Amino acid sequence: MRPSGRQPDQLREIRLQRNYTRHAEGSVLVAFGDTQVLCNASVEAGVPRWLRGKNQGWVTAEYGMLPRATHTRGGREATRGKQGGRTLEIQRLIGRSLRAAVDLKKLGEFTITVDCDVIQADGGTRTASITGGCVALVDAIRHMQRKKQIKSDPFKQLVSSVSVGIFKGTPVVDLDYPEDSGADTDMNVVMTQDGGLIEVQGTAEAAPFFRGELDAMLDLAEGAGQQLFAAQSDALDIRH
Amino acid sequence: MRPSGRQPDQLREIRLQRNYTRHAEGSVLVAFGDTQVLCNASVEAGVPRWLRGKNQGWVTAEYGMLPRATHTRGGREATRGKQGGRTLEIQRLIGRSLRAAVDLKKLGEFTITVDCDVIQADGGTRTASITGGCVALVDAIRHMQRKKQIKSDPFKQLVSSVSVGIFKGTPVVDLDYPEDSGADTDMNVVMTQDGGLIEVQGTAEAAPFFRGELDAMLDLAEGAGQQLFAAQSDALDIRH
Amino acid sequence: MRPSGRQPDQLREIRLQRNYTRHAEGSVLVAFGDTQVLCNASVEAGVPRWLRGKNQGWVTAEYGMLPRATHTRGGREATRGKQGGRTLEIQRLIGRSLRAAVDLKKLGEFTITVDCDVIQADGGTRTASITGGCVALVDAIRHMQRKKQIKSDPFKQLVSSVSVGIFKGTPVVDLDYPEDSGADTDMNVVMTQDGGLIEVQGTAEAAPFFRGELDAMLDLAEGAGQQLFAAQSDALDIRH
Amino acid sequence: MRPSGRQPDQLREIRLQRNYTRHAEGSVLVAFGDTQVLCNASVEAGVPRWLRGKNQGWVTAEYGMLPRATHTRGGREATRGKQGGRTLEIQRLIGRSLRAAVDLKKLGEFTITVDCDVIQADGGTRTASITGGCVALVDAIRHMQRKKQIKSDPFKQLVSSVSVGIFKGTPVVDLDYPEDSGADTDMNVVMTQDGGLIEVQGTAEAAPFFRGELDAMLDLAEGAGQQLFAAQSDALDIRH
Amino acid sequence: MRPSGRQPDQLREIRLQRNYTRHAEGSVLVAFGDTQVLCNASVEAGVPRWLRGKNQGWVTAEYGMLPRATHTRGGREATRGKQGGRTLEIQRLIGRSLRAAVDLKKLGEFTITVDCDVIQADGGTRTASITGGCVALVDAIRHMQRKKQIKSDPFKQLVSSVSVGIFKGTPVVDLDYPEDSGADTDMNVVMTQDGGLIEVQGTAEAAPFFRGELDAMLDLAEGAGQQLFAAQSDALDIRH
Amino acid sequence: MRPSGRQPDQLREIRLQRNYTRHAEGSVLVAFGDTQVLCNASVEAGVPRWLRGKNQGWVTAEYGMLPRATHTRGGREATRGKQGGRTLEIQRLIGRSLRAAVDLKKLGEFTITVDCDVIQADGGTRTASITGGCVALVDAIRHMQRKKQIKSDPFKQLVSSVSVGIFKGTPVVDLDYPEDSGADTDMNVVMTQDGGLIEVQGTAEAAPFFRGELDAMLDLAEGAGQQLFAAQSDALDIRH
Repeated sequence: MRPSGRQPDQLREIRLQRNYTRHAEGSVLVAFGDTQVLCNASVEAGVPRWLRGKNQGWVTAEYGMLPRATHTRGGREATRGKQGGRTLEIQRLIGRSLRAAVDLKKLGEFTITVDCDVIQADGGTRTASITGGCVALVDAIRHMQRKKQIKSDPFKQLVSSVSVGIFKGTPVVDLDYPEDSGADTDMNVVMTQDGGLIEVQGTAEAAPFFRGELDAMLDLAEGAGQQLFAAQSDALDIRH
Repeated sequence: MRPSGRQPDQLREIRLQRNYTRHAEGSVLVAFGDTQVLCNASVEAGVPRWLRGKNQGWVTAEYGMLPRATHTRGGREATRGKQGGRTLEIQRLIGRSLRAAVDLKKLGEFTITVDCDVIQADGGTRTASITGGCVALVDAIRHMQRKKQIKSDPFKQLVSSVSVGIFKGTPVVDLDYPEDSGADTDMNVVMTQDGGLIEVQGTAEAAPFFRGELDAMLDLAEGAGQQLFAAQSDALDIRH
Repeated sequence: MRPSGRQPDQLREIRLQRNYTRHAEGSVLVAFGDTQVLCNASVEAGVPRWLRGKNQGWVTAEYGMLPRATHTRGGREATRGKQGGRTLEIQRLIGRSLRAAVDLKKLGEFTITVDCDVIQADGGTRTASITGGCVALVDAIRHMQRKKQIKSDPFKQLVSSVSVGIFKGTPVVDLDYPEDSGADTDMNVVMTQDGGLIEVQGTAEAAPFFRGELDAMLDLAEGAGQQLFAAQSDALDIRH
Repeated sequence: MRPSGRQPDQLREIRLQRNYTRHAEGSVLVAFGDTQVLCNASVEAGVPRWLRGKNQGWVTAEYGMLPRATHTRGGREATRGKQGGRTLEIQRLIGRSLRAAVDLKKLGEFTITVDCDVIQADGGTRTASITGGCVALVDAIRHMQRKKQIKSDPFKQLVSSVSVGIFKGTPVVDLDYPEDSGADTDMNVVMTQDGGLIEVQGTAEAAPFFRGELDAMLDLAEGAGQQLFAAQSDALDIRH
Repeated sequence: MRPSGRQPDQLREIRLQRNYTRHAEGSVLVAFGDTQVLCNASVEAGVPRWLRGKNQGWVTAEYGMLPRATHTRGGREATRGKQGGRTLEIQRLIGRSLRAAVDLKKLGEFTITVDCDVIQADGGTRTASITGGCVALVDAIRHMQRKKQIKSDPFKQLVSSVSVGIFKGTPVVDLDYPEDSGADTDMNVVMTQDGGLIEVQGTAEAAPFFRGELDAMLDLAEGAGQQLFAAQSDALDIRH
Repeated sequence: MRPSGRQPDQLREIRLQRNYTRHAEGSVLVAFGDTQVLCNASVEAGVPRWLRGKNQGWVTAEYGMLPRATHTRGGREATRGKQGGRTLEIQRLIGRSLRAAVDLKKLGEFTITVDCDVIQADGGTRTASITGGCVALVDAIRHMQRKKQIKSDPFKQLVSSVSVGIFKGTPVVDLDYPEDSGADTDMNVVMTQDGGLIEVQGTAEAAPFFRGELDAMLDLAEGAGQQLFAAQSDALDIRH
């Protein structure tokens, strides 16, 4: 039995609240149960130096956790003077994942930065960030279209993400913190609507995992993906 | 006339939402109109090195602004590798102000850190942080009492803060961003319930200000203080 | 009684020694009693990036304390790898104050940086820095005029600063270190010759202060200001 | 056809040269073709602060690339003042992978740090680092046993790693730089001798990948794993 | 007697292995006995900002030590976030020394960076770096000539370096680590083929040294220089 | 002819003003002509971690240059976030040199830090720092003796330093800035009273130098040393 009483294939309640703050071109508060992440997508003219003159845009992400998003207070990275390895790894993952949603050639020389700041953490902050960040990204693109900053539509497809794992021998989906910290294996999967995989990152915690377990976890992720794409589509009023 | 149509002595709508996140011992989302700050008070055993063995506690604050709390995206301080001068100045002010609410001797060897993270900015983030942070601080102290971490009550008095300024020649209270960026003089006042002053920080922006203007601004702050203390008391269910 | 035997409204001996070092366009060693600060004003062509093309100049300040300016050695900020919050706060205050002495539009695209380095500290280093820095700034402007770098005169008015406080219940002016560390309230006031206020920063140390005390402190500051302006004018050979 | 002319399931020449430098307790130069990584395992008494008193050891890794290990010179991270996100991500992966080879409880309060420094890069530096680092780790453990620093044997199993990917539509193993930079999908797999998986990290580069492709890549990795374990065992004179 | 059994004027075995890695324009593994340094010379178009438009090139060096090049593991400078004082001092010395080998005017607006990374340390890493780095530099220049990046030949003369010292009262050459750590005086000498001196850096460790000792050490360095120039010439196939 | 009109063997006017500031245990303003350095020696209980329990003391130095000590303003190292290579090199040299003046075993577990801050620079700041720093060091030792912090006298001998160089073909002593920037060779020599050498650091600037020139420069340094020791002795009221 899962600590939360959920079925192995049952997601937590997923909420996607658009227009959460008023300044960002896209602003989404995403909740996977008690995990809450504010995803703000900002549009800025110009691209990083290494992309200049290549006639394309860029999508990137930054990730942060408020110091008391967690059970015990974590040091503020701005105070420590650098982002930790975990933070850098997560924001690189979010950025790569969101770029799969966009045709950078059609974006023009603009950069969209998706800031994912964790207000409250209960496991799965990176998967919530990707899922919510994609909705904010679509809103930012729609804003650019309304402002006539771009002519064609750079949006390609929705991208969502969920964690799966082996908890006490059973494959489960969308691990919360108690499961996450006790799981034998933890895997984050980033998916497209047509069943494609963008990222698969599985890590053995206590013991190696095997091909059969990997397959069971991927099956769970696939099922969850359909629900996440539905939630994103509903939030965005896209028919699905 | 003020851009918002408010009277010179009229505060924006003040909201103080307690228990906003679930991990912090005190967690308050404070809103001064469109300015929203999440104030999380964390209790940790121990004190900074320079206070060890002095048989007292410590109250400190950290301040941050989410990158897209503002009209245009500001760089993430964790990415830039240090907190800017404005951030350090504000968090020092918040810490000093909140220490006036507490008898550090009665706090025991505990540190309460109040993290003030600006979700959305529209002027007055430091005054909102102090006003909301004080409520979170009281909640954290109450939590310590319930947990029997302290015997006597270290809470001394409520502390609140408001900005006042000279806008187009007229003294006004609780400046929002359009007023703040156009004011001739900007002053932040931190107050106690009995009419005492904790901090007075007035800055001439375009032109010097004079004693008469200073007096008018302090009068406005005093009036606003009574409303802020009422709002804090209501939120905390303290009779007033 | 004050530890130094001074009257409540009595300043320490003020000295302003111009041309103290030979390279800077303005170089003043200022002493408020045993507090000694070397203020060097440097003229450089160009302005910060965010001011380019706006057809104006810039005045800024940097502040530092030699490691053994104080009773016990303080760590060198260059060795620690960053300026502390107190340093940043002080140099921002000095910069804002000195900008009130200058019409930036008439300065042309030049930057004047006033470096205030504390040789010996005995309380009031920031007020001495502003008072001495203003003299160095005037010298730098005069140098620019002699070199024909500017045509009109950007100098608007002298700016001086003094600390006031409540020490053992009595309002006093120009606190030295023993007073500063024992004061109930400490306030720094930055003034113009015509009685205008540029900055008022009052902080309750042990207990809140009240409007009557604030008024008494401002009266003291005003009186001191007249003496400081006279000292600056004498040093600069300006009739007053 | 692969640029190197290799078969899809053909590894580059694998070399594992032990005792490469003389100071480290384990020192292995590993080559996957033209990719050369020096893996030095250092034994130090003590564990990180957060593990003290828990009666166990720790295994960690650090990764670096010599500035001219690549086609064009990359900036030295020590000069830039921090390790980049890619570096941190890789060294965290190496550390997690190598910990799967060791029973930390049996290691006692010792830390083994495996430094993986890339002398020459041609794709697959992280997989070479894990494969070579594991051999250095075993040598360091054997050294501890000879020195009687530990009584029981903390070594559990060999760990090896290989990259697989989809290059021009075909699943291939052990991608060199030309393949790596042109691959549609890139996946790093960390394995144990009994067919277990420690890490699976697959990334879609140009287009999503699908379950069938994932399976084909994992099959390739499994086959390569057997050859890598054989190479490690040969180098260590372990019968297999 | 020297710990290694060498004669006072006897160098360790000197090896200079060119083309050690394949990407750098010049790549030399230099060994002074057990001290091994990889010297990679990289050619890049452009010069540092302060040299732009001066119609000349630049030669610079960076130095690093692999964490376990030494008896006990040294912290990785990239992890600590800065290069230490010893590192900076050494790389400045190497850069100054190598610039003596080149006519910067004839180099055109190119920068050659010589990275000296110590694979294994046994004393004399800076002298080995200069001696090996000069060979890598010549190879990089020859590469530029073959690529027609320059027309005239900027190479002026070979530069080599050796340490000399007073060990147990006797002047000796090319100190290894046991001698280096026990020497009374340690001196590094950088020389040109015609007997010129580029750098002389002598340091008294336990006791002052005298003119007679200085002379004896310089005599030893001169003799060693001839052998080092021969080794460099042989490696480069220059007749001598 | 030297730009200053001095004879080749003529020092600039040397001044050593003791008790320059009031807090430091030793405080000396040293002037070599227009080069002025404030040398403050601070005594602190305890030694660096790596010396603890070894029953000895430590002497170290830190060096800084006020931003406008030079012709054009140099960036403040505290603002840039790190000490530059030149600074680190100089303060390491000063520290090593001053340690030659002291028997660390007799110093007890105390650290003396000599801060050398350049008020005005005109060449030779490091040699002035060593010469003045030694006088401040002696004062700090005398202070410790008066305070009974040490029983025996750790002072061994005076240490002084001077620069020598080849300027327009002629060996000269104590180079000022115009000479320093135009010299063919620049050498800093650190000496003891009995004719011993502590450091010899010679650098060819434009062209190599030869043994004869080295000898001539050392002769000049020796002569200057006698005058510097006399000046130090006079300042300290030591008979000589």
